[in-house]
Amino acid sequence: MPAGLPTDAAYAAHLDAHDPLAHFRDRFVVDDPNLIYLDGNSLGRLPAATLALADDLVRRQWGAGLIRGWNEGWFTAPERIGAKIARLIGAQPDEVIVADSTSVNLFKLVAAALRRRRGRPRILTDDLNFPSDVYVLHGAIDLLDKGRRLEIVPSADGVHGPDAALRAALDDRTALLTLSHTVFKSGYTYDMAGLTEEAHAAGALVLWDLSHSVGAMPIDLTAAGVDMAIGCTYKYLNGGPGAPAFLYVRRDLRDTLDNPIAGWMGQKGLFDFGLAYQPAPGMRHFLTGTPPIVSLSLIEPGVDLLLEAGMDNLRAKSEAQSAYLIGLWEALLEPLGFTLNSPRDPQRRGSHVSLGHVEGLRIDLALIDAMRVLPDFRAPDTIRLGIAPLYTSYSDIHTAVMRLRETVAEGLYENYSATAPTVT
Amino acid sequence: MPAGLPTDAAYAAHLDAHDPLAHFRDRFVVDDPNLIYLDGNSLGRLPAATLALADDLVRRQWGAGLIRGWNEGWFTAPERIGAKIARLIGAQPDEVIVADSTSVNLFKLVAAALRRRRGRPRILTDDLNFPSDVYVLHGAIDLLDKGRRLEIVPSADGVHGPDAALRAALDDRTALLTLSHTVFKSGYTYDMAGLTEEAHAAGALVLWDLSHSVGAMPIDLTAAGVDMAIGCTYKYLNGGPGAPAFLYVRRDLRDTLDNPIAGWMGQKGLFDFGLAYQPAPGMRHFLTGTPPIVSLSLIEPGVDLLLEAGMDNLRAKSEAQSAYLIGLWEALLEPLGFTLNSPRDPQRRGSHVSLGHVEGLRIDLALIDAMRVLPDFRAPDTIRLGIAPLYTSYSDIHTAVMRLRETVAEGLYENYSATAPTVT
Repeated sequence: MPAGLPTDAAYAAHLDAHDPLAHFRDRFVVDDPNLIYLDGNSLGRLPAATLALADDLVRRQWGAGLIRGWNEGWFTAPERIGAKIARLIGAQPDEVIVADSTSVNLFKLVAAALRRRRGRPRILTDDLNFPSDVYVLHGAIDLLDKGRRLEIVPSADGVHGPDAALRAALDDRTALLTLSHTVFKSGYTYDMAGLTEEAHAAGALVLWDLSHSVGAMPIDLTAAGVDMAIGCTYKYLNGGPGAPAFLYVRRDLRDTLDNPIAGWMGQKGLFDFGLAYQPAPGMRHFLTGTPPIVSLSLIEPGVDLLLEAGMDNLRAKSEAQSAYLIGLWEALLEPLGFTLNSPRDPQRRGSHVSLGHVEGLRIDLALIDAMRVLPDFRAPDTIRLGIAPLYTSYSDIHTAVMRLRETVAEGLYENYSATAPTVT
Repeated sequence: MPAGLPTDAAYAAHLDAHDPLAHFRDRFVVDDPNLIYLDGNSLGRLPAATLALADDLVRRQWGAGLIRGWNEGWFTAPERIGAKIARLIGAQPDEVIVADSTSVNLFKLVAAALRRRRGRPRILTDDLNFPSDVYVLHGAIDLLDKGRRLEIVPSADGVHGPDAALRAALDDRTALLTLSHTVFKSGYTYDMAGLTEEAHAAGALVLWDLSHSVGAMPIDLTAAGVDMAIGCTYKYLNGGPGAPAFLYVRRDLRDTLDNPIAGWMGQKGLFDFGLAYQPAPGMRHFLTGTPPIVSLSLIEPGVDLLLEAGMDNLRAKSEAQSAYLIGLWEALLEPLGFTLNSPRDPQRRGSHVSLGHVEGLRIDLALIDAMRVLPDFRAPDTIRLGIAPLYTSYSDIHTAVMRLRETVAEGLYENYSATAPTVT
C-alpha cells in the first residue's frame, strides 16, 4: 500500500471533502455520528425515505386502504422492485423478481435446474460459499432423485477462491456450478464471466449468489451469460432486516424452469381459483405465497439511492476506501498482530475487509461495547469491516482503525470473554 | 332464523351497546367510520399498537440499533410470536414457529411427512381446499419419489365439505389427509377432531390449514391429536399484508421430520458457520432463511389483542354476528335473489358468510366503488362478508346489508362491468 499514506484524521477529512458521493450520507438516518458503523455488509443503514415510506405503508396503505392496497401497488411490487434491482446487476427488467428468502430462492432454482440436467450427477461449489447455500444444496439434492452429489472444492488459504481447481473440476457430468460471487468471510470476488464461460463450455448451468456483491459493485449478468442468480436485499441494498430476497433467471431459460414450490402468487389467473396449477408467464411463476408486503416495500428506497448514485461511482469509492483501510492496517494494525484476511488485489476484492487476530472475538466485543464501533465477527478470528460507499466516510474508516488500535494497544479487549457473536 | 328478527338500525345499535367486546374496536385504527369493512378474513385491520410498533421497529430498532437488533429480539421473534399463536390453537409454546408463507410452510411439512410415509402412495384432500394448497401438494408430489398421487375428493354442493366421502376414502395406502379447516369460499368448518381420529385410525398423518380459522374460533390441536398445521397471520390475526405464516408440528413428531429446505436459520450453532447442516432442536429447524423482521414483528400486537379478548368470547360474538347476518339476509336479501353459500349450522360455519348472486361481481364492484362497503368476491358469483369479532360491529353488518339491498333494489350495480376482483 502507499508507502507515505497519511494516517492522520485530517487526511481522512480531506478525502471526505473531495468525495463526490459524500452527500448521500445525508439521505440516511444517522442519529449518532460517534457510532462507527462498519456492518452495512450485514445490515444496511436506514434510508430516510424508507422511514417515511414505512409510515405511509402502515398508516395509509394498510390502515386506511385496507384490502385495496393489493390493487394499488402491492401485487406488482415483486416485479416493480425486481426491475429496479435488475438495473444493478445487468439484467433485463423482466428477469428479476423479489420473493421469499435467499435460501428459499436457491432451493427453488437448484431444484428446477437439477430437474433439467438429469444424467449429470455432479453439483459443484467450494468451501467459501455461504453455509446456508451449502445446506440448501444438500437438502435439495437429498430430496431429488438419487445419485447426485455435491462436491465442495476446498480453498487453499481460506481467503482466495479455488478458481483453478473449480475450472479443473468442471466436466460433462457436472449439472451445476454455484458459488457466492463475493465470499462472505474474506470478501474474495470471483471472475464471474470467466467461470461462467468455462462452466458453459462443459455444458453445466451456473448460479451465482450475489448477496455480498449486489449494491457494492457493478455486476453484468447479461454480459457474463449467467443462467441464474439469487441475492439478498438487506446488506448493501439497505432493504431492512431480513427483507425479502431476489432471484434472476436468464430470459430464454425462464419459462423452461418449473418452480418446485408452486403457489398461488405464481398462478396464471390468480383469482380464477382453479385447482390446476398454470404457471404465470415471466418471472412471476417463481413466486409462491403471499409476500410480506411491509418488508418487501421497504426495499425500494434503498435501491433507488444506489441507482441515483450509480454503481460505477460507488465501486470507485468502495475500491478507494478499502485500499485506504488496507493502507491504515499496514501502517497501524499489522504491527499489533492483525492479519489481512482479504485479497490484496482490488479486482478480486468486494466491499468488506476482513482482519484476523488471535484475540478477534474479544476485540470485537470490546469494539461494540466500549469503543462505539460496530463491525462483525466471523469465527474463529475474523473481524469484518464493511464499507458501504453510499454512507461510509473515510473518517469512519480512520476512526475505526484508531479505535481498533487502541483496543489492542491498551489491552481493552482483556475485559471481555467470548459470548454469542452478531449476525450476518 | 328468528322469525321476528328486527331489521332496523336501532336493533343493531342495541346489540352493539350490549356487546362486551365492543370496546376492542377502539384498539384499531378506524379512520373512516362510514367505510364498512367486511374483509378482515382477507386482510385484518391495523391495530393501533402495531402502528406504534412499526415506528419503533424502523426508527429505533433498525435505524438506531442497526445490527444489534438481532440480539435484542429479532432472532427470537419466530419462537416468541409462535408461542403466542400456540395459545390460540391449543398447542404447546414449543410446537409453533413463525416462518415464510403458508404455501412454503405447507411444502416443507408435506415433503417432510411424505418422506416418513413411504409405501403409502395416496395424499387426500378435497376440492374446497385453498387452490394454493393444492398447487403446493401437486408440486411436492411431483418433486418427490414417483408413484404418489393426490386425490381430490369432490364436494357435493360446493358449500359443505365432503366429510363422509373423505372418511370413506381413508385407507392403509393413505399417507396424508390435508384440508383447510375452514373453507375459504363457503366458510364451512370441518370436524377437526373427528376427521383426525379417523385418519389416525387408518395410519395416515393429518395436516390442517388453519388460515381461515385461527383468530376466528377456538382451536384445540392438542385435544384433536393433530400432527401438523399451518396458518396465515394476515387475516383474523391482523398481522399486516402478507405477514409471515406459522407452522405447527406435534411435539413427538417434531424432531423426526426433516425440513427439506434446510437453511442457516434452522442450523444448530448458527454462527459456527460449519458446512455440515445440523438441525436445531425444537421448531427452529423448520426455519430456512433470514425472516422479514419488520413484517414478522408486526404480527405480535394483533395476536396480543386476540389473547386479551379470549377466543371463546370472540367465537360467541362471531356466531351471534353471523347468525344476525344470516337473519338479515333471509329477511332482506333472499327476496332479491341472493343465495346463502355458507352452512346454516353454526357449528360448521367459520366467521365469514358467503352470499351468491348472479350479478355477484357487479354488485361487489358497486359496493366498493359507490356504497363504501368492502367485502370481497370469489368467482363465479360469491360475495364474502367477513366478520372479525374484534372490531366488526352489529351496525357494520346492518349497514352492509342495507347497502347491499339498495345496490340491487335500485339497480346500482348496472353501472359496473366485470374487471379484476380483489384479493384473499
